[in-house]
Amino acid sequence: MRLLYHFPLSPEGRLVRLALAEKKLQFGAEAVDLNGLPPAVLTLSPRAQVPLLVDEDRTPVAGAGAITEYLEELYPLENLLGTHAAERAETRSLVDWLNTAMARDLTDKLYGEKLLKRAQRNGAPDSRAIRSGLDAIDAYLRWIGAQCDLRRWLAGDQLSLADLACAAQISVIDYLGDIHWQNFPSAKTWYGRIKSRPSFRPLLADSFPGLPPAAHYGNIDF
Amino acid sequence: MRLLYHFPLSPEGRLVRLALAEKKLQFGAEAVDLNGLPPAVLTLSPRAQVPLLVDEDRTPVAGAGAITEYLEELYPLENLLGTHAAERAETRSLVDWLNTAMARDLTDKLYGEKLLKRAQRNGAPDSRAIRSGLDAIDAYLRWIGAQCDLRRWLAGDQLSLADLACAAQISVIDYLGDIHWQNFPSAKTWYGRIKSRPSFRPLLADSFPGLPPAAHYGNIDF
Repeated sequence: MRLLYHFPLSPEGRLVRLALAEKKLQFGAEAVDLNGLPPAVLTLSPRAQVPLLVDEDRTPVAGAGAITEYLEELYPLENLLGTHAAERAETRSLVDWLNTAMARDLTDKLYGEKLLKRAQRNGAPDSRAIRSGLDAIDAYLRWIGAQCDLRRWLAGDQLSLADLACAAQISVIDYLGDIHWQNFPSAKTWYGRIKSRPSFRPLLADSFPGLPPAAHYGNIDF
Repeated sequence: MRLLYHFPLSPEGRLVRLALAEKKLQFGAEAVDLNGLPPAVLTLSPRAQVPLLVDEDRTPVAGAGAITEYLEELYPLENLLGTHAAERAETRSLVDWLNTAMARDLTDKLYGEKLLKRAQRNGAPDSRAIRSGLDAIDAYLRWIGAQCDLRRWLAGDQLSLADLACAAQISVIDYLGDIHWQNFPSAKTWYGRIKSRPSFRPLLADSFPGLPPAAHYGNIDF
């Protein structure tokens, strides 16, 4: 059986779970404690990278970017990159940007300070960073809305890794209750569409000890 | 003619220049000012991502990760990922790690504070960050050495994107004169081998106004 080691509330682990489920690949999932990775993970991922996928033939693949490219190469059904070179370039360019700019301005400042630091027992949240993250919500949610006013999904008319990478980040910020959806109707339409997919359901059942999700987090109607 | 818009001292731009040259693909290069991207770049890269490659058929590809995957798909000669799925996964996993862990601990703290902030006119360097970056040199240079004591190149017996991504970062730190190579003989052997490749030569001629390179930066014997 294919096995994924992951930290359930992390955007990287969520991206991989969504990609596996969209490709209809069966997998077992083992949640890890970021403060003490199991020896099995450290043996197969010597640089301590999670998520770590161990495929059916025992090939280990560490890190969300490496895993998603590996899945596209080996399991091309339910293509998540696009068909033509220009489409694939646009999808990857969006994923690059979401994983650098949006992660830096928004996700690292909210999920990183409020939840990841607690999971890593890595000191108190930095309130200035949190304020800066809250200020960045507006621009990114408006960007999502504007993009989806033009096309059905972020990279075009098909669901792609760009939607999954973006939703994985948005979902952990939404878990914290930081998004006032009534202010972002177009982004809400996109998120509602992705949240109601079967691939998303397991993510809506995740919970972090001592920090329960916002009340609307698990609802398809939010 | 294929055209690359890039900031010459950035690790991302350097990675792409190395990949293009290793694949023996001809390209023109246009240096950009990070404080004012040319309108041609903003039209083709609306999220202001550089490096930006405009291929011979005018396909635009923005961001180093998207460009290197695009080049592997369209120009598979001089393969930089490896042949088998497990090799390709290991290369991509290394690149992920170098672009997150090494960039965060080392490159962002030295190149980011000393050079990028100046290029972006983005305030004074943070001396605490610089000290933390200097402290991180030892662990990463020893890791490079240990890896290359086991195999010829970072991901195996063939040069790969992992070597190019690592050398691109190391080269900008070496430009600043922060690496005392006599302390890292194995890493020095690896860097000497990559520095003497024809693909590397144009990088050794780069210079940033007001911040000239360390004396040994351009020498093949250093």
